[in-house]
Amino acid sequence: MKKLINAPENVVEESMAGLAAAYRQVLTAHFGPNFLRRVDAPVNGKVSVISGGGSGHEPLHGGFVGRGMLDAACPGAVFTSPTPDQMLAATEAVHGGRGVLHIVKNYTGDVMNFEMAAELARAQGIEVEAVVINDDVAVKDSLYTAGRRGVGTTVLAEKICGAAAEEGQSLEQLAALCRKVNAAGRSMGMALTSCTVPHAGKPTFELATDEMEMGIGIHGEPGRERMKLRRADEVTDLLLQPVLDDLALGSGSEVLLFVNGMGGTPLLELFIIYRRAQELLQERGISVARNLVGPYITSLEMAGASITLLRLDDELKHFWDAPVWTPALRWGI
Amino acid sequence: MKKLINAPENVVEESMAGLAAAYRQVLTAHFGPNFLRRVDAPVNGKVSVISGGGSGHEPLHGGFVGRGMLDAACPGAVFTSPTPDQMLAATEAVHGGRGVLHIVKNYTGDVMNFEMAAELARAQGIEVEAVVINDDVAVKDSLYTAGRRGVGTTVLAEKICGAAAEEGQSLEQLAALCRKVNAAGRSMGMALTSCTVPHAGKPTFELATDEMEMGIGIHGEPGRERMKLRRADEVTDLLLQPVLDDLALGSGSEVLLFVNGMGGTPLLELFIIYRRAQELLQERGISVARNLVGPYITSLEMAGASITLLRLDDELKHFWDAPVWTPALRWGI
Repeated sequence: MKKLINAPENVVEESMAGLAAAYRQVLTAHFGPNFLRRVDAPVNGKVSVISGGGSGHEPLHGGFVGRGMLDAACPGAVFTSPTPDQMLAATEAVHGGRGVLHIVKNYTGDVMNFEMAAELARAQGIEVEAVVINDDVAVKDSLYTAGRRGVGTTVLAEKICGAAAEEGQSLEQLAALCRKVNAAGRSMGMALTSCTVPHAGKPTFELATDEMEMGIGIHGEPGRERMKLRRADEVTDLLLQPVLDDLALGSGSEVLLFVNGMGGTPLLELFIIYRRAQELLQERGISVARNLVGPYITSLEMAGASITLLRLDDELKHFWDAPVWTPALRWGI
Repeated sequence: MKKLINAPENVVEESMAGLAAAYRQVLTAHFGPNFLRRVDAPVNGKVSVISGGGSGHEPLHGGFVGRGMLDAACPGAVFTSPTPDQMLAATEAVHGGRGVLHIVKNYTGDVMNFEMAAELARAQGIEVEAVVINDDVAVKDSLYTAGRRGVGTTVLAEKICGAAAEEGQSLEQLAALCRKVNAAGRSMGMALTSCTVPHAGKPTFELATDEMEMGIGIHGEPGRERMKLRRADEVTDLLLQPVLDDLALGSGSEVLLFVNGMGGTPLLELFIIYRRAQELLQERGISVARNLVGPYITSLEMAGASITLLRLDDELKHFWDAPVWTPALRWGI
């Protein structure tokens, strides 16, 4: 295993400490239980927005803590759900009096642990709403999930709900908005190579040198089909078609096109995929009104990419465009 | 070779087209000869700033085209210098009447081809100044270079000189500022794995599973020493010490700490390096007043990292903090 780490058991805490040191003006790290929080939270009069999940998907979620996005993020061990005490402590720490929205990716452990934390917080009189993101069209159930997995749309939901919270929306409004984003977003991913979890010390799965895995999950869970390598344009079509079918997007629709890198794929390649995806959408009369290109929800050093489409309307565009200042997304500030 | 490409000969053009499609409001692509230019260039009354080099180091340089940074970037084939006609065409295209600054990384082909373009532009009455960046302390001469190689400081020089150009500095002032940045910046890098140039189809070099290469160049050129893998903290010390020695930084100095990923190294690991680097600087009484962490000058999918330190003063901090809007760096706008 070749990694720039000290010891597998210290990876998450040391990385959190580095992130907090680099972005002192944006966030701080809390240890035991572990969470990252906005430096100015609780922000008075604002509903707080929290997410979390296993580490190894950086910048998700810690890189999205900051003004206009998350109030706190709870990183678990690599590819392992955070524990309820993390989400409870984060909820208590950033609760500003108007309630807390939990944005949860649909993995069995995440959903269960966030639920437990929400119950404990409610017992203390903190209003909590949880919305589960399940946007991955690749497979119905999978290794860690009942139902669809939560992937790329999570990033978009965190941005959009974070902006709406900043503008003063109520907890009820935010939960409805988050459900709307989840309903309007769909994703599919693929991998050229595996990744190696530090504690495991060996690749999660094996792919032959001429093979790729279509519909892969962000922990290397099996996808739809293992197939021979194809050209980037064909791969793009294979990723985009099921997403388009599932969203039933017609000509004249507007979308946000999110081309995500899994970690080990160069930007050079992501823009080749973006080019083809945009071309294909144009052919269908679908307009790419907003976009995001880069490694935002990753699987350690896995080579591969995913495509997320989000059906847009004026409300979603407004919140997408709103100012944000986090380690990984920043504009308007 | 596992890559998300269509054909090696189309990688650069297709990726340029994707970048330009994704950032229509920021830049446009010109083909034959190839360059990327600010959508609003030439900006009247402003000196233009241009850079370029082989592709495969993305986001460098095309990802730094935009307001507050570069007016144009000339991408060569992967790891291959751009040709003089690219730099000449870009210079003509963005020249706004006050001259053009060429920021050139110290590789023999880049320096020669930029020089030729500058001479041809001058023959047309366009004032051109070129500044060569040579900040890599790892080796004196190397595979593609006489003298030190140009690496991480290039990113910082493009940001700082771009901001100064935006504020109306003259060509002479900008060239002096760029030389100042080059004199104040030093870097060293390392690799855990090789990368594969699309045209070559096989890894540039081989490293055993328990080896790393210290002092690696951004094209996989040999470094100082091939050694057994070490812990991240030790690797950080080995990268930072030669940089500190070369800059002769004393207690009380202020620096920008730039922890750069080579492409295939997860953010999780880069922040582990950042944490140790900052700790070590603190021990020496050196204050990290600004920072940058992420893959900004890469070697395709190579796993590894580099550290750049830039000695800061009020002038450099001012221009670093100035608003910028490019695909890869954006703040204040």
